[in-house]
Amino acid sequence: MGEFELIRNFFAAAPCAQGGEGVALGIGDDCALLAVPPGEQLAISTDTLVAGVHFADPCDPFLLGQRSLAVAVSDLAAMGATPVAFTLALTLPTVTADWLQAYARGLNLMAQSCGVALVGGDTTRGPLSLTMTVFGRVPSGLALTRSGARPGDLLCVGGDLGNAAGALPLVLGQRTAQASITEPLLAHYWSPQPQLGLGQALRGKATSAMDISDGLLADCGHIALASKVGIEVERDRLPLSQSLVAFLGQAQAQVAALSGGDDYVLAFTLPSVELPLLLADGWPIHVIGRVVTGQGVTLLDADGKDITPQTRGYQHFRESP
Amino acid sequence: MGEFELIRNFFAAAPCAQGGEGVALGIGDDCALLAVPPGEQLAISTDTLVAGVHFADPCDPFLLGQRSLAVAVSDLAAMGATPVAFTLALTLPTVTADWLQAYARGLNLMAQSCGVALVGGDTTRGPLSLTMTVFGRVPSGLALTRSGARPGDLLCVGGDLGNAAGALPLVLGQRTAQASITEPLLAHYWSPQPQLGLGQALRGKATSAMDISDGLLADCGHIALASKVGIEVERDRLPLSQSLVAFLGQAQAQVAALSGGDDYVLAFTLPSVELPLLLADGWPIHVIGRVVTGQGVTLLDADGKDITPQTRGYQHFRESP
Repeated sequence: MGEFELIRNFFAAAPCAQGGEGVALGIGDDCALLAVPPGEQLAISTDTLVAGVHFADPCDPFLLGQRSLAVAVSDLAAMGATPVAFTLALTLPTVTADWLQAYARGLNLMAQSCGVALVGGDTTRGPLSLTMTVFGRVPSGLALTRSGARPGDLLCVGGDLGNAAGALPLVLGQRTAQASITEPLLAHYWSPQPQLGLGQALRGKATSAMDISDGLLADCGHIALASKVGIEVERDRLPLSQSLVAFLGQAQAQVAALSGGDDYVLAFTLPSVELPLLLADGWPIHVIGRVVTGQGVTLLDADGKDITPQTRGYQHFRESP
Repeated sequence: MGEFELIRNFFAAAPCAQGGEGVALGIGDDCALLAVPPGEQLAISTDTLVAGVHFADPCDPFLLGQRSLAVAVSDLAAMGATPVAFTLALTLPTVTADWLQAYARGLNLMAQSCGVALVGGDTTRGPLSLTMTVFGRVPSGLALTRSGARPGDLLCVGGDLGNAAGALPLVLGQRTAQASITEPLLAHYWSPQPQLGLGQALRGKATSAMDISDGLLADCGHIALASKVGIEVERDRLPLSQSLVAFLGQAQAQVAALSGGDDYVLAFTLPSVELPLLLADGWPIHVIGRVVTGQGVTLLDADGKDITPQTRGYQHFRESP
């Protein structure tokens, strides 16, 4: 048995590969089989993470295991879907038992937290990269898309912004600070929590949604384009964590929140009539702007003045590409 | 707009990304949405191809586009599934318009031939590799798995074996021959035709099936293990193409057929009572052995003598890993 076949057996024996609701056939055949209940559709998303591009190389394999799955599952949250399963295509330069075990521990932990089963994949030799494809189910016609925002809707987000961008110089070893500041930021970077409950609560209520991966302004631009509307973002209403402000200062914390990316917090548009009940149910919703007629994204200061960044420079927190 | 966003738009505009039956939402949102008819299940398979490991680097991008999709769709054929959609995670070191256009042409051609729509994916910078995840639908309970072979069943394959292994020294530039010999071999390597019709015809008839990717002996070993049976392969009944025999000679052609891999021809087990009607319907079925009690795979010569290879040497045609 070759070493890559051993790895396949290793993952097949992992706790997260032991099936789950909706998994009719798991790892070990030519295909996995998923059952989709009548009246539901299957939501699918694929994400690739490349060493040296999307994460530092080397990095902690346990943390990578958590983050790689969380990033992919966040797309299911953005559709309001209930996670079912995922596949993992893992490309490794060498096979190291310690690395694999730590990676699998992180993966299992996040899989358990999100309720997804590993149902297949591929393991190959090559430069380190990971491609996750995630599957969720959503009632037919109720998936949250990017295209339904209407003028008058509120622009909302599901939590603090900019923490992952703030963590990046820590991850890359470019800066240090006291643990009380760095730990929350690093936790957000390495184990973002997909907002699955919030996404499901928004079904039939939000008019559009996505998860913030490219940065708030860029991702609001995606909603504006798909919905053929304009979006106004109020800089002074951005939710910022104490850690981020302590680490970067207010002004740079706002830049991180606007352009940082990797937040994996939901951004969505909501008719204002829907807001009170969602807040009463305890969902962490912050209103940060509104949908208007027009196109594109406009950033406003406290006085309502247009302070939209005019250069690509605001993308400097983004990991490429 | 960054160059990788341009690529995403390029693929979103490709003919194969314009939706299809069962695709409720295609490229451009956080997830794609697939509709699965009541009484059917969704079959899923993931394959990664790494440059320099699974294909020569550089290679013809048009041919790579065809082959990368065909290899993945072949797993749907092996389950008896009807293809619906696929995602493409493409990692590229540099962005070259000519390369992308040629790759997309090959991809489109194979997508059209197999009836699959591109519904999503990811495009990232890094060492060249491709991960395809394919989706098909199959009536609940009728998918062909590896685990149902029973003693007394016939062992069958759906066409000539060893052609892709024969092509490998040509692909790698290690040998040459006249075009009448090389062209059929190279065609089989670069654009294998997933046996979708045969797979669907075998639903409810074959007791097990898979597509030959690792090599006949190794893949029969997978069926034997999953079904808890033994499998006898008769060397002198292996279907070999004239080109392969002309190129390698009879003995080496048999070795390629037994161990070569990359054939993407179906191997399956069948109660003998099912054979006549399938043959009458014109399916290209070759009986090459039988299922017996016991375990593992045994290779027999014309006299019924056990000539099973005792070394790992028979794997020398295999691409690694």
